[in-house]
Amino acid sequence: MADRAADSYANRRVLITGGSGFLGLNLVAVLRGSGAELRTLSRSPLPNDGEAGALVAGVRHFQGDLRDRDVVEAATQDVDFVFNLAAHSGSTSSYDEPFEDLDINLRGQLTLLEACRRVEPAPTVVFASSRLVYRPTDRLPVSETAALGPLSLYGVHKLAAENYHRLYGARHGLKTVLLRITNPYGHFHRFGERRYGIINWFIDRALEGQPLPIYGDGHQLRDYVHAQDVAAAFMLAGTDPKAAGETFNVGSGRALSMRDAADAIVAAAGNGRVDYVPWPRDAASVETGDFLADVSRIKETLGWAPRHAPRAGLQEVVREFQQMTRKTTTAVRGEGGPF
Amino acid sequence: MADRAADSYANRRVLITGGSGFLGLNLVAVLRGSGAELRTLSRSPLPNDGEAGALVAGVRHFQGDLRDRDVVEAATQDVDFVFNLAAHSGSTSSYDEPFEDLDINLRGQLTLLEACRRVEPAPTVVFASSRLVYRPTDRLPVSETAALGPLSLYGVHKLAAENYHRLYGARHGLKTVLLRITNPYGHFHRFGERRYGIINWFIDRALEGQPLPIYGDGHQLRDYVHAQDVAAAFMLAGTDPKAAGETFNVGSGRALSMRDAADAIVAAAGNGRVDYVPWPRDAASVETGDFLADVSRIKETLGWAPRHAPRAGLQEVVREFQQMTRKTTTAVRGEGGPF
Repeated sequence: MADRAADSYANRRVLITGGSGFLGLNLVAVLRGSGAELRTLSRSPLPNDGEAGALVAGVRHFQGDLRDRDVVEAATQDVDFVFNLAAHSGSTSSYDEPFEDLDINLRGQLTLLEACRRVEPAPTVVFASSRLVYRPTDRLPVSETAALGPLSLYGVHKLAAENYHRLYGARHGLKTVLLRITNPYGHFHRFGERRYGIINWFIDRALEGQPLPIYGDGHQLRDYVHAQDVAAAFMLAGTDPKAAGETFNVGSGRALSMRDAADAIVAAAGNGRVDYVPWPRDAASVETGDFLADVSRIKETLGWAPRHAPRAGLQEVVREFQQMTRKTTTAVRGEGGPF
Repeated sequence: MADRAADSYANRRVLITGGSGFLGLNLVAVLRGSGAELRTLSRSPLPNDGEAGALVAGVRHFQGDLRDRDVVEAATQDVDFVFNLAAHSGSTSSYDEPFEDLDINLRGQLTLLEACRRVEPAPTVVFASSRLVYRPTDRLPVSETAALGPLSLYGVHKLAAENYHRLYGARHGLKTVLLRITNPYGHFHRFGERRYGIINWFIDRALEGQPLPIYGDGHQLRDYVHAQDVAAAFMLAGTDPKAAGETFNVGSGRALSMRDAADAIVAAAGNGRVDYVPWPRDAASVETGDFLADVSRIKETLGWAPRHAPRAGLQEVVREFQQMTRKTTTAVRGEGGPF
C-alpha cells in the first residue's frame, strides 16, 4: 500500500514540516527507501544518535520556525510534496498559551502556504489535521461530513488551517489534502514527552514502572491509530490524484476505552499500574467524550487500510520499546504532536 | 423592539469596538438615548463634524488597535456589554493582505476576549460575524445550521473568531452571542468607501452620477439588511437571556438581485447608471452565488423583526443622503466593515 505509493516519490523533493517530531520521523522512516530527496523543517535539530539518528542520516534539515519566511522559502524551493505536520500541540496548553498557539498554528501555516503558492509547478500539500475539529457527538463512528465544533483553541486553529489549505488549493492551484488524524501512537516519540499523545506517554510510564493516571473512570472510547498507518495514509494522499482537494479521517476505525488501552499497556509491559484520579478542570473542559472515526472514505478512495488493530498495536509498540534501551528510543523533541 | 431593549442599558457600561465605523455609528445612534455609559474603541478617531460628529458627542473614545493589550484593557475595564464590530474588512482584500487580516481579525479578537474574561462580573459580548462563514449553497434560505465553508481568508477568520467567542463563553463564563450579518447598508458609512459594502458604495456612486459596475449579469441574489435593523438585533442580543451562547442570522430575510438593487438605487437617485462589466478574477473567486438568510431563529427567540424591506429601504437611504450635503454624510473611516 505505502510500498506501492513509495515508487511515486523517487527523485522527487519532499519536505516534512515538523520533521523532527513523532509523526514526522515516522514519515521519514517510510520515505527513506523511496528514493525521494528528503527535507525536514523544524524548530528543533534532528536527532543525532540512536535509532532515530541513524534514520535521518542524509536528510537535509532546515532548522527554523514556520513563521520565518526566509527559512520557509528555502525549505520549499522547487518542492514537489509537502507533508505538513508542524504544529504547536495540545488542547489544554492552547488555553495556557493562546497567542503562541495562534501564531504558530495559523501565522506559521499561512507563511508556509504563501511560500508554496509561488512554487512551480504547484506542489502537493498534505496537512495533518485532527479529530479535534469535530463537535463532540454520541453518533459514532464520526464521518468527514459530521458537524465541526472544536472544544479548544488548538482545534479552532486546526480547523482554520484546514480552511487555509482548502482555499489555497482552490485559488492558487495547490493540490491540498486534509488528513484528520485520531489518536496516534508508535515509534519515535520523545521518551516521557506528554505532548506526543497520552498513549505514548502511558507506554513510557509503564516501562518505567510508574502509575498511568486515568481521569475519571476511563470508559471514554478513543480511536488509537499506529503512526506507521498514519504515515502510509500520507504517502497515498500525496500521490493519488483522487485525493486532491479531499478530507479524510485517518484512524484505526476501531474503538478502545482509555481504561482498556492503559490495561493493555500495563499487561504488555509487565510493569506500571493504572491510577484513577479525579478530572482536572482544564482537562475536563476539553474532553470530547467517546470518539471513533469512520474511515470508509479513505479506504474506498485511496485503498488505504490500517494494518494495526488498537490493542495488538499498542502491545507490539510496548514490546518494541522494551527491546531497546531508553537511550536509543529518545527522539529529539519536535513539533509533530498529539491529536 | 430596540426601544424595549434600550431600557436595559441605562447606566450600564457599553463598549463598541469598531465604534467609528459604519455599523458602529449606527449602534451609537440607537444607544444614545438609552442612558448607557458609551465607549468606543477604534484605530480611527471619532468623526468630529456633521451629523456623525454630533452623534458621538459625549462618547468616551479609546483610539487604538484591538491588538494593543493596554488600550483593550482600559476600554474593557468594568464593562457590562461589548458590541464587537472591529474587523479588517473585505473578502478580496483578505487575499491581498493575508497576514494583516489574520492579525487584526484573530489576534485582535483573542486580545479582546482575554481582556473580557478578566472583567467581573462577566460581560456580555455580541460579535459581528458574517454570512460569509457559510458554504455557498443552492438551498435557500440559509439557516444557522447550514454547512460552513468560507471562500475567503476573511470568512475563515470570522469563523475562527466565532469559535473563540463560543469557547470563551463556555470556558470563562462570558455571555457571548454570534450575529451573522448579511449585506448591510445605511447611514454613517464613509462616503465613497467601498469597504463598507457594495451597496453603500453604489448609493454614493449614483448620487455623484457615476456608473455602478455590476460584475456579470448581476442576477445573483443578496439579502440586504438596513443598518438600523442590525443595530436593533445587537440591542436585543445583548440583554435577552435567551440569546446567550446562541448564533443568529441577521438579514432582511428577503432576496433582491444585485441588478435590481442597483436599478432601485439609480431610480431613487435619478442619477448614475448601471454598468455591466466582466468578472474580475479576484472577485469571481470569492463570489458566493445567491444568498438569502433564514431569519426565523432570531424572530422566534428574540422577537426581532426587520423594519426595512430591501428595495424600499435602499430607496429611503438614497433619499436621506440626497437631503444632506456630501460633507455632512461623511463619517470618518473606521473598522466596521462589509459582510
